[in-house]
Amino acid sequence: MSSYFTEEQSVDAVNERVDPNTNPRLQLVMASLVKHLHAFTKEVELTQDELDQAIKFLTTAGHLCTEERQEFILLSDVLGLSMLVDAINNRRPSGATENTVLGPFHVKGAPARSMGDNICLDEKGESCHFEGKVVDMDGNPITGACVDAWSDNADGFYDIQQPDIQPKWNNRGRFITGEDGTYSFFGIKPVSYPIPNDGPVGKLLEALGRHPYRPAHMHFLVTADGYKQVVTHTFLGDDPYLSSDAVFGVKDSLIAPIDKTEGPSVWHSKFDFKLVRATAE
Amino acid sequence: MSSYFTEEQSVDAVNERVDPNTNPRLQLVMASLVKHLHAFTKEVELTQDELDQAIKFLTTAGHLCTEERQEFILLSDVLGLSMLVDAINNRRPSGATENTVLGPFHVKGAPARSMGDNICLDEKGESCHFEGKVVDMDGNPITGACVDAWSDNADGFYDIQQPDIQPKWNNRGRFITGEDGTYSFFGIKPVSYPIPNDGPVGKLLEALGRHPYRPAHMHFLVTADGYKQVVTHTFLGDDPYLSSDAVFGVKDSLIAPIDKTEGPSVWHSKFDFKLVRATAE
Repeated sequence: MSSYFTEEQSVDAVNERVDPNTNPRLQLVMASLVKHLHAFTKEVELTQDELDQAIKFLTTAGHLCTEERQEFILLSDVLGLSMLVDAINNRRPSGATENTVLGPFHVKGAPARSMGDNICLDEKGESCHFEGKVVDMDGNPITGACVDAWSDNADGFYDIQQPDIQPKWNNRGRFITGEDGTYSFFGIKPVSYPIPNDGPVGKLLEALGRHPYRPAHMHFLVTADGYKQVVTHTFLGDDPYLSSDAVFGVKDSLIAPIDKTEGPSVWHSKFDFKLVRATAE
Repeated sequence: MSSYFTEEQSVDAVNERVDPNTNPRLQLVMASLVKHLHAFTKEVELTQDELDQAIKFLTTAGHLCTEERQEFILLSDVLGLSMLVDAINNRRPSGATENTVLGPFHVKGAPARSMGDNICLDEKGESCHFEGKVVDMDGNPITGACVDAWSDNADGFYDIQQPDIQPKWNNRGRFITGEDGTYSFFGIKPVSYPIPNDGPVGKLLEALGRHPYRPAHMHFLVTADGYKQVVTHTFLGDDPYLSSDAVFGVKDSLIAPIDKTEGPSVWHSKFDFKLVRATAE
């Protein structure tokens, strides 16, 4: 009987070392991680040089992380991990508005606005009218729902990325629905932008021949008492990066038609949010 | 036809994005990594909070990394990944001396010593006589082999961990075999020591009920013209951590008997190195 590490028994050698009296969830997660990490390593017969490169990659990524820059979230994003975790934890019945990733640019406590207000404060970009309804699964309007919306500006940056250039709360606002469940506000037609790509994640994308762009989108966080929150974007139906979002955030059901209008804005985009009751599974 | 990300098709959604004209090895490694990473995530149904904790873990680990401290190597070590990569890349025929991890404390260019010299320069610890032969697979002595040996001192630290306390090159030396292939030198009986455990990897070990200790060992890097190098340790057969090395470095064949002697040292440890020809597979 030998409990020593061998190539064949590598997974058991590691997982049998764990004290069975420790946190069961941690044990389960770590045992699965070790199993799949070793399976990967064996499948590709990872070389020592490649392991060294991986260590360097993680070290460089770690050194880049600050309050404003999170290279490991970017890594999770470009590997589809962020979207996968979002999908697993937000399964909903067919017809309900689907989730997508929150992203790093949401800010709590955006100003409460009145319906019809304009959230664009820097007077840049092409005006767009966003409107629609918040409804339950039967199509009935939800009163008092909060529609928290945010987007980049016409240069492709969120206000918190340019605190010295953009007005505070530029392209952000919260709207509370009335009895008809509708929302309506003006902003800009959002623009596509690259995720930060001057670090190791950017280099990885380049080495794989992948571009760093996200298709243009308006972020929404929709909440209502008694309903599950929806964290999502609407994607503008005419964006060239729609089928190649660097972080895989696009879903069929989240593509919103966008049309030129003759009204007070250049563009018009309509999208309804269908929420699931908090008690329903 | 939709190429958008779904939970079911998550792996294909990510891997189909890669440009087929990029480096084939990188494509293969990344495709396998994504496949196994997603399989792990689905198997445990990783929560958003757990993903956030993982991001924090990696960030803290990254911030801890310096020239002297490599938290990601420690992480690779305690997950058995370092040993697995070593095993995959150093498969040898039965009977040949097995590899184990190099560890972070090897220093190139240690002083060339004469057979019988003492490499312990700080006069601490219990003296130990290390001796044996470097031979080929038929048992014939190898002339001119270099036996590069290093160990911790009696306090459990390598000289480069305590540059202000220990003499330079303490417990390090290189020995060149003569016609009979033998080596012989004095050092100390190495002591067990914890891997650095004041960071996130130490916290992970603690949460899993695992101790951070490595059993006492002498490091060897044995090289000879025309032979594959051997990077290994010999482990002292009387160590209490032998079956629970925090980094899984122990192998049956690397446990060396250690005996009390009546000679010029307190202890005596004999170990032969059997090398494989560089041309043999």
